[in-house]
Amino acid sequence: MLGSTHGTLTTDFRARVVACGEEPHASVVSLPTATRQGGLDVSGRPLHLAVPDLDRFFRPRSVAVVGASDTEGRPNTGITRQLIAWAERVGARLHPVHPARDAVFGRPCAPSVAALPEPVDLAVLLVADPLPVIEELAEAKVPFAVAFASGFAETGEAGAVAQARLAAAVERSGVRLLGPNTNLNAFEEFRDDLEGPAIALITQSGHQGRPLYALQELGIRLSHWAPTGNEADLETADFLAYFAQRPEVGAIACYVEGLKDGRSFLLAADRAARAGVPVVAVKVGRTEAGAEAAASHTGKLTGADQVVDAAMRQFGVVRVDGLDELQDTAALLARARPPRAEGVAVYSISGGTGAHFADLATAAGLTLPALSAAKQDELHTWIPGYLNVANPIDNGGHPVGDHRGRKIIDAILADPSVGVLICPITGPFPPMSDRLAQDLVHAAETTDKLVCVIWGSPVGTEDAYRTTLLGSSRVATFRTFSNCVTAVKAYLDHHRFASGYRSPFDEAPRTPSPSFRKARGLMRPGQQLSEHAAKQLLRAYGIRVPREQLVTSAAGAVRAAGPVGYPVVMKASGPHLAHKTELGLVKVGLTSASQVRDAYRELTDIARFESVDLDGILVCQMIDRGVEMMVGVTHDALFGPTVTVGLGGVLVEVLHDTAVRVPPFGEKEARDMLGELRGRALLAGVRGGAPVDVDALVEVVLRVQRMALELGDDLTELDINPLVVLGRGQGAVALDALAVCR
Amino acid sequence: MLGSTHGTLTTDFRARVVACGEEPHASVVSLPTATRQGGLDVSGRPLHLAVPDLDRFFRPRSVAVVGASDTEGRPNTGITRQLIAWAERVGARLHPVHPARDAVFGRPCAPSVAALPEPVDLAVLLVADPLPVIEELAEAKVPFAVAFASGFAETGEAGAVAQARLAAAVERSGVRLLGPNTNLNAFEEFRDDLEGPAIALITQSGHQGRPLYALQELGIRLSHWAPTGNEADLETADFLAYFAQRPEVGAIACYVEGLKDGRSFLLAADRAARAGVPVVAVKVGRTEAGAEAAASHTGKLTGADQVVDAAMRQFGVVRVDGLDELQDTAALLARARPPRAEGVAVYSISGGTGAHFADLATAAGLTLPALSAAKQDELHTWIPGYLNVANPIDNGGHPVGDHRGRKIIDAILADPSVGVLICPITGPFPPMSDRLAQDLVHAAETTDKLVCVIWGSPVGTEDAYRTTLLGSSRVATFRTFSNCVTAVKAYLDHHRFASGYRSPFDEAPRTPSPSFRKARGLMRPGQQLSEHAAKQLLRAYGIRVPREQLVTSAAGAVRAAGPVGYPVVMKASGPHLAHKTELGLVKVGLTSASQVRDAYRELTDIARFESVDLDGILVCQMIDRGVEMMVGVTHDALFGPTVTVGLGGVLVEVLHDTAVRVPPFGEKEARDMLGELRGRALLAGVRGGAPVDVDALVEVVLRVQRMALELGDDLTELDINPLVVLGRGQGAVALDALAVCR
Repeated sequence: MLGSTHGTLTTDFRARVVACGEEPHASVVSLPTATRQGGLDVSGRPLHLAVPDLDRFFRPRSVAVVGASDTEGRPNTGITRQLIAWAERVGARLHPVHPARDAVFGRPCAPSVAALPEPVDLAVLLVADPLPVIEELAEAKVPFAVAFASGFAETGEAGAVAQARLAAAVERSGVRLLGPNTNLNAFEEFRDDLEGPAIALITQSGHQGRPLYALQELGIRLSHWAPTGNEADLETADFLAYFAQRPEVGAIACYVEGLKDGRSFLLAADRAARAGVPVVAVKVGRTEAGAEAAASHTGKLTGADQVVDAAMRQFGVVRVDGLDELQDTAALLARARPPRAEGVAVYSISGGTGAHFADLATAAGLTLPALSAAKQDELHTWIPGYLNVANPIDNGGHPVGDHRGRKIIDAILADPSVGVLICPITGPFPPMSDRLAQDLVHAAETTDKLVCVIWGSPVGTEDAYRTTLLGSSRVATFRTFSNCVTAVKAYLDHHRFASGYRSPFDEAPRTPSPSFRKARGLMRPGQQLSEHAAKQLLRAYGIRVPREQLVTSAAGAVRAAGPVGYPVVMKASGPHLAHKTELGLVKVGLTSASQVRDAYRELTDIARFESVDLDGILVCQMIDRGVEMMVGVTHDALFGPTVTVGLGGVLVEVLHDTAVRVPPFGEKEARDMLGELRGRALLAGVRGGAPVDVDALVEVVLRVQRMALELGDDLTELDINPLVVLGRGQGAVALDALAVCR
Repeated sequence: MLGSTHGTLTTDFRARVVACGEEPHASVVSLPTATRQGGLDVSGRPLHLAVPDLDRFFRPRSVAVVGASDTEGRPNTGITRQLIAWAERVGARLHPVHPARDAVFGRPCAPSVAALPEPVDLAVLLVADPLPVIEELAEAKVPFAVAFASGFAETGEAGAVAQARLAAAVERSGVRLLGPNTNLNAFEEFRDDLEGPAIALITQSGHQGRPLYALQELGIRLSHWAPTGNEADLETADFLAYFAQRPEVGAIACYVEGLKDGRSFLLAADRAARAGVPVVAVKVGRTEAGAEAAASHTGKLTGADQVVDAAMRQFGVVRVDGLDELQDTAALLARARPPRAEGVAVYSISGGTGAHFADLATAAGLTLPALSAAKQDELHTWIPGYLNVANPIDNGGHPVGDHRGRKIIDAILADPSVGVLICPITGPFPPMSDRLAQDLVHAAETTDKLVCVIWGSPVGTEDAYRTTLLGSSRVATFRTFSNCVTAVKAYLDHHRFASGYRSPFDEAPRTPSPSFRKARGLMRPGQQLSEHAAKQLLRAYGIRVPREQLVTSAAGAVRAAGPVGYPVVMKASGPHLAHKTELGLVKVGLTSASQVRDAYRELTDIARFESVDLDGILVCQMIDRGVEMMVGVTHDALFGPTVTVGLGGVLVEVLHDTAVRVPPFGEKEARDMLGELRGRALLAGVRGGAPVDVDALVEVVLRVQRMALELGDDLTELDINPLVVLGRGQGAVALDALAVCR
């Protein structure tokens, strides 16, 4: 089954697709692990991901260890010993394989996999070069293998070639491979005495998963760990999609250095989003330094960080920066039930602590609803009247020492505006903090609302923390304000996202629009289009451009100006022509035939002087109102074409105030892009001005997405700048455009 | 001595200064704890801070407890018991005072402070209303008091009045008071077995200081804790200045909700900066919600957050957001010696961990120098050749298990480009992590470079962490990547700041400039000046404005246009006139006498129609080049006048891209302001354009600062927008200005 559903494995997508003979209307990329049975979108990218059945991989009944050793001093000996111990614990039968040994640690050793006494589910390859073994595994119908060997793509070009060879052999074989350059973390044992939904872990580095594994000592259940290494075959997306359908998995935590393929990651994230399973990820690549270091670790592309960030947000993947945040956020998302309300109540024994926490929480976007007067009155039956209980709720300390403590907590939890109760205990003060912790644990057992406690002591050996708080699976315990804020924000965001999720893949276009045929005729392979041609491309997709005519004589210019309408703008138009304004190749506000004639002469003179190749002079309608924006398409190494919107004009280069999305995305995302701009207030109208036609701007973004999908990789770059957005109901006009064909 | 040097204590500065009869040329504010002996700057603000001698406050030989009790069930009984225990531990003689008791806990009790058998250094006031006791303390010459009572400024208006009365009584008495609304944290005991420089702690909330106090259990020394409460008298600034001169204090950690006075805080921070003592602070007030909650806790103004942020940076105060960051940063700054180099080496047993840490570190602005080829060769004698050791340095794991581990660490530390070695250990893997921790501790003992370790395990009970790492005072141990990055960045920034620090108070102007006399005559109390008058104010301070004339007839306009020079701009000018462009009260590009005449008529018509009060029509030189910036003055509730620079024109309202400084500041700060702007690239020249005259812009900022200082509170608001900055060497011109007089 596996052989038929998992896809091709070369790293050169283009070559592979051509070989498949599936060339659609535009260039195409495809995916290692995606089947085509679910269909392709209009860009030729898959719309469905085949989820590998990894049950036997994670719970093998019998395992072969190829290259097993018991000679003291050899690295494989230690690994063999650990694998034997692991197999005994998980109840798997382990078979050493070595051509030159009869027995390893007293177990009979076979010379080859073919010679084993029974079929095995999994082969662990301890050999330096796993390539020659792969065919043997296929013959023995071994479904899964793990390769520890390093020296592949992480070492540079020669290693990448070796990895491609290995990947090709694996693809032919039908064996599914984890690695190379992975490690023993694939064979960890998980505590089976912990309850509740578990965290499943995917890491591209063993050491980076270590603290998450250690969460079990804090009472948090783990179910799987996939240390993916170089991902010659099985990749992060495969595990993501598989874990998302496992009933015991409450959340998936990932440490990602680079992605093997952007689309398969998104399709896997889409599966998790459909299933409502939260995904939390650390993704390296905020900086060049990080990206380079990651490349030399597992040999992967990190991708443009702004694009990775947007792609993750589109599909609900919670991105965090630290492993500590990854732990705390994944643990909360795995275990907490959906919120009953979005309001957060902050309760503390100190007004200072409440103020500080409220400050950080609201800065992060959490909402602290003011409690009703009736609720405040109720709280004041136990809390002195001079203390503020509006939210944050300050009890002044003393009430936690007696029966009042629990009553206060229950009263807060009973408030319908409160979905989350957070109690920051900055440090141990046993007369107060011990009983407070106890009361919170007890109260949490009687409510379906989320109860969070921050145990802020740097010591962390206190009983109230170790026994009371960590002993409860109903209270979410944090060590810092910021991790609690991050996790609670992610929790509320996730449930809001998941409950409203509609997969953009369901609505992605599969066939070209009528615009496509017109547009295709305008493309000039290998060239930058002239402004005039680029605007025709936009018109083909229904994006408005100014009235304009391309002329090649002064008389023609004057003739054109009439129907265009005075005042006109005149610009030089030609392929490879950028920065026209700087070159003096734009004239605005021409109000008469004589000005038009003069301008024609001047522009052609400058063009001659600057050796600029012209296809003519554009005589354009002048539009000097509206807000200047930009909308564009760029190609990302991981995700293919992406759509950008931002402040336009000269500002685009100075402020870099842009938002980006990876297709396919719907109207809501296009609107959300505008909300991400720092200069979004421009769209609402400045200095009493009227708001602009945001609907028209959103429509242009969606039409540009359609262009990006249909023209695919043939459209290397598109840059509409400025796109002038007029007043409400008046539309948006592309005043200038640059298009580069592949 | 105290009575003569500490200042006035009302919260109404203006009233107090007038009462002092020290009105200088401009309005003036003054400061509770600042003497005037050090002089005032030209705005009337003090240039020096009197540092109270708090030795006896923190180490009293004899203490009176006013309101002592041993009646079970009374709150004062518990407090009395704790104070007795504390006095015994620190070796102070404790005297109960109560009018109706003969003895408390077996100690003879005096009816009043006057009746005590010896003079006391400190009176602890447990009474509900401390006011009546103050005079008695003064008569008994008690230098210090602590008041626990709450119900003052934190409760609202009536409480603020009561606090002002208490403050006034304290001021008259000469007693220095801590509180009211403080607590027993002023009477904590500190471990005396810990070595090295200590952290001194200032908190406006007892509970918020708790985790810092607990640092002692991690081996970090604390020397003082000032829980300042409502600060009716002694304030954060007093303790800051006092701690900065204590030899045992290595760093000062503060939790601040609001400041009693901005200037005294800056003068105290200046003292710390001169002494090279780092100050780390959490300051509440990032959001309105936090500011409100803080106000209801200790009744203080939080101040505009952008201004607080800038003021702290100007004086080298490290601002952090979380108490965990406060702990980690203060501990590092207290204990680490100055850096030998600014380069950071990241060393890990995993390439993934190195990549991840490098990503976060470089994103935060740390520099990871690439190690030399020779150094890399040296490292490869112990580390397999396929691993990347350029920095981050990946040893692949195995070398830490034997003699190579220590050699690698020593080789990295020996590199002259490396000032800081950071080793992130994400989680416990005892075969590797235990020996690695040990080697790092030993290596740290032989170097004067900073060695940092991150112990990322969420468990924290491991021996390698508790015993090996925390047992060393030479290794700085962190629990999260982000806190390590924050602390190391603060450490390098602090030493760079401290070594180049020049106090702006030494160079602050004390006497008005010649501009002042001219400018004073232009001020119109209670009015917004007309554009023309505002520009005259600017001219008085040498800020260039366009050639312009104010005219009151069409003929006058035509006469003016000649010398101004065509093309001209014409604008309506009048007091209270803003948003002229929106009203149609600006005409640009007028090229002839007839256009000027028409424009005059049109402008006066619109003004009549809009009922705008004009002082005339401005005929101005037209300047349509340059980059539009804004420079302004606003008044901050805490810090008085502040100077802002930002992107100008319509963008100022949309992008809020501004930088602010609190006077006095020098040229370097003015330049740094420009570097903080997101749109700073505009100044470097856009699309191949030439860079603008940044020197001229800096000069305008400094001249505006001078105006802010000399015109003081009389100039409520100044807004030069746009200030057009021309090409290099061509200056900057204020095209429009708005000035409001108090």
